[in-house]
Amino acid sequence: MNSENEKPAVILLSGGLDSATVLAMATNQGYRCHALSVNYGQRHHSELLAAERVASAMSAELKTIQLDLRAFGGSALTADIDVPEEEGEGIPVTYVPARNTIMLSLALAWAEVLGAGDIFIGVNAVDYSGYPDCRPEFINAYEEMANLATKAGVEGTRLTIHTPLLDLSKADIIRQGLELGVDYALTVSCYQADDEGRACGVCDSCRIRASGFEAAAISDPTRYQ
Amino acid sequence: MNSENEKPAVILLSGGLDSATVLAMATNQGYRCHALSVNYGQRHHSELLAAERVASAMSAELKTIQLDLRAFGGSALTADIDVPEEEGEGIPVTYVPARNTIMLSLALAWAEVLGAGDIFIGVNAVDYSGYPDCRPEFINAYEEMANLATKAGVEGTRLTIHTPLLDLSKADIIRQGLELGVDYALTVSCYQADDEGRACGVCDSCRIRASGFEAAAISDPTRYQ
Repeated sequence: MNSENEKPAVILLSGGLDSATVLAMATNQGYRCHALSVNYGQRHHSELLAAERVASAMSAELKTIQLDLRAFGGSALTADIDVPEEEGEGIPVTYVPARNTIMLSLALAWAEVLGAGDIFIGVNAVDYSGYPDCRPEFINAYEEMANLATKAGVEGTRLTIHTPLLDLSKADIIRQGLELGVDYALTVSCYQADDEGRACGVCDSCRIRASGFEAAAISDPTRYQ
Repeated sequence: MNSENEKPAVILLSGGLDSATVLAMATNQGYRCHALSVNYGQRHHSELLAAERVASAMSAELKTIQLDLRAFGGSALTADIDVPEEEGEGIPVTYVPARNTIMLSLALAWAEVLGAGDIFIGVNAVDYSGYPDCRPEFINAYEEMANLATKAGVEGTRLTIHTPLLDLSKADIIRQGLELGVDYALTVSCYQADDEGRACGVCDSCRIRASGFEAAAISDPTRYQ
């Protein structure tokens, strides 16, 4: 591996299917991967254990930050609001206010300390839940801002927010991840997985994941409750 | 007070001179003020007590979020690096990587849950320490991004980041604050204040604060060690 291929990068890792694929992609591109996971008081804390399994399987450093977003609430994932079990209209109640903005800001802090000019996030604008902070225009604006926010910005070094899944269908994400050797049995996508990481099978995230495996004609390794 | 004047706003409150003035300004403009303070593991934790005193004196709700940025380090305020006692060149070691980006992102989350379209931050580009995330171009880019990040952005409601101190000298900030009744004896600016909130008198922040009182020809209520 030459020095060009040893650039550090920060990868936001939730423990779900998407971010596990992103970590595999960044690793495959030769980055030295620093995975960042956030314990924000999410209902599905078993995704944090999944993040540990995934990072360990791909030999990435993992840092887990404690930041309890239940202090603000406003989401089915951080307040006492039921996770819907049927598809609805508009932005779903599982949307966590400003979550990706906060996560990217933590990644930005770590990137600056590491001297990393690359941050990876697994947002997707095809088979997704309609969250405002998964849209390409948000990511572009975030990158603009980030390039003014830090020392690197002042010194003229460019920071890039990589979104390799942005235009992929869930089926394509799964196909590409499998090619890179991702073990999806390690991941947890469900919004209300139990402590053993077994999925409910009925929430939005479970439905999108299951359709992805179906569309890719790949057997779904998800363990259900 | 009419309904137009009862709009909620989130005010980033550090417990220092600048943010106390901003809180007074927002209160004076008729906003219902929700003050946000962040315990990020800063060396000068007595500023958190100062934030409590300031919020209480101005009858603002205060929420203190725990987010330990020592996990990343990279600053004299969050790592084992000495606070400089003389003026230096370039961006000082007291700069905390991505701090204002992170703080604004937490404020954004709370604003979204409150339905607030206004966030106040006490950044200043005149008598300041040269931090990249205090520059007007950063704030403008942040506002752009924030308007794409949230539900409000999707629904077309505009979010504004207010920076009423941006172009004021420290002396002007103090003069305006005193007119609004700010008790600066409650505030702590020092980067290495002791547990009683007494200032060192030699750090960058102490020097800027003391010059401000001097330039304004106002007796400095700061308690020194």
